[in-house]
Amino acid sequence: MRKIEHIGIAVKSLKESNLLFEKLFGQPPYKEEEVVSEGVKTSFFMNGPNKIELLEATNPDSPIAKFLEKKGEGIHHIAFDVNDINEEVIRLKNEGFVILNEIPKKGADNKLVVFLHPKGTNGVLVELCQEIK
Amino acid sequence: MRKIEHIGIAVKSLKESNLLFEKLFGQPPYKEEEVVSEGVKTSFFMNGPNKIELLEATNPDSPIAKFLEKKGEGIHHIAFDVNDINEEVIRLKNEGFVILNEIPKKGADNKLVVFLHPKGTNGVLVELCQEIK
Repeated sequence: MRKIEHIGIAVKSLKESNLLFEKLFGQPPYKEEEVVSEGVKTSFFMNGPNKIELLEATNPDSPIAKFLEKKGEGIHHIAFDVNDINEEVIRLKNEGFVILNEIPKKGADNKLVVFLHPKGTNGVLVELCQEIK
Repeated sequence: MRKIEHIGIAVKSLKESNLLFEKLFGQPPYKEEEVVSEGVKTSFFMNGPNKIELLEATNPDSPIAKFLEKKGEGIHHIAFDVNDINEEVIRLKNEGFVILNEIPKKGADNKLVVFLHPKGTNGVLVELCQEIK
């Protein structure tokens, strides 16, 4: 857990929200990327050592579509940068956290990602992510 | 907007959540602080260049009490570190954002803070904060 790698924000329209967050940060997203396996289109904004990821659902079964339906637009997850994702999974499992996927999967922005169950973290969906080298 | 200064997380019990987040980060909070004017008790964890702020309500009229009642525990706000908070307020107002308090107020952790209305930021409560020198 070396820093907040990014905050994920669920939005209805990536196109509209890109314009909005460009005004907020004073700069456009540095990339857009689709993650077909997760049913999302994403865009990323740099903010010093951190990033903001906007997430739009690409189909009704996408976790983001379900989140928007239930809670509306807003913060979806916090992702922490880790050095060794498998070590962190073991450490956190031993501490009693519930890991949603123990085998890291490929996420957006060249990362291996693991999610912790929000029931064990005060309602916060926590992502661990490690850069793929 | 130089970095994510902190993420604020609304919790029912600071005592219990301090233990939980100590397990997550592998270290205890570096401070606890009450902000009487906001009706909150807070604790802060370091995470590299960023912080996590846990917020517990100290009375039923606290914004955190209302948030917990409506949405349950979870992420309450994102705070961005700014160099000159008054300049940022003018810039963001000109960009069409709705500012909740145009005159910065004293927040926790030695900061001047301003909030943007979440209706103008995709449901995200955005805080600007500037260190008091």
